[in-house]
Amino acid sequence: MEFYEVVKTRRSIRSYKPDIPPQDVLDRISEAARIAPSGSNRQPWRFIFVTDPSLKKKLVSACGNQKFVGEAPVVVVACGYDIKYNRGGYMGGMSFLVDVSIAFTHLILAARSEGLGTCWIGEFENEKVKRILGIPDGYNVVAVTPLGYPREDGFRETDRRKPMAEIMSINKF
Amino acid sequence: MEFYEVVKTRRSIRSYKPDIPPQDVLDRISEAARIAPSGSNRQPWRFIFVTDPSLKKKLVSACGNQKFVGEAPVVVVACGYDIKYNRGGYMGGMSFLVDVSIAFTHLILAARSEGLGTCWIGEFENEKVKRILGIPDGYNVVAVTPLGYPREDGFRETDRRKPMAEIMSINKF
Repeated sequence: MEFYEVVKTRRSIRSYKPDIPPQDVLDRISEAARIAPSGSNRQPWRFIFVTDPSLKKKLVSACGNQKFVGEAPVVVVACGYDIKYNRGGYMGGMSFLVDVSIAFTHLILAARSEGLGTCWIGEFENEKVKRILGIPDGYNVVAVTPLGYPREDGFRETDRRKPMAEIMSINKF
Repeated sequence: MEFYEVVKTRRSIRSYKPDIPPQDVLDRISEAARIAPSGSNRQPWRFIFVTDPSLKKKLVSACGNQKFVGEAPVVVVACGYDIKYNRGGYMGGMSFLVDVSIAFTHLILAARSEGLGTCWIGEFENEKVKRILGIPDGYNVVAVTPLGYPREDGFRETDRRKPMAEIMSINKF
């Protein structure tokens, strides 16, 4: 799919068919995340593809009981570890949020290019998700998304964004 | 350009031609960032396109004196503000790093699709960049990139990434 078509028609999908995507599709999406850039190429990330129904059910309860998360055939959990790099002098141990978000954005866009829906979930309980999936100390959860074919065609352009003049400027803020 | 071609051939470019990209190209890149998703659609971001030579020179000194940053015709600075949303219960005031990184990834990939080089710079002094560009209190710099046509064809697939088995797993970490 053409790049801008992917970006323009990616939407948060909140209703999924149960069909599990073919393995070659999942492989291409994973590869898009794997090759993402990161600070000094540290790649401080790990992605868990959850398909087990009982684990998905537990994840729903760790994500504010958003039922549609468990409706998808796959739930992807992205986690990362502190790279001991304090970007900008103020990020402290949170610099890995930047790197993991880059790779997860690759994954989200690749999914769209395959006709798969996602919904970047920000509401999750880190410690609870870690216990459910056996994520070790030192790693923290950055993002969660359901992954599957949309029940209805929800891919369309968005119209709910700030106007360009509010978010872009030349030379000075 | 086809989506996977963009993702696979995006590389950090460290040598630039002085040519300023046409406005319609810059507009499409900006639009890709503008329509990016963010937590609860808060869009806590702002992008500054710096073309003024004296400002670029100052930015170089605020980015660890990486000279190639100033060689590019444009330097893009992404900043964001605290959305008072504590993702995962541990991100505190750093949750906006996730949102700004999503939008900046859109911008970086869109640039590649237009044949433009970028290099995501993590080494910058937040307070110094803020002073140079008049970025107000409440905003912080998340990322910086030079933007311009590569001096040599540096777009090719990467081979320096962790193997899939190290970063992906099924159901459990």
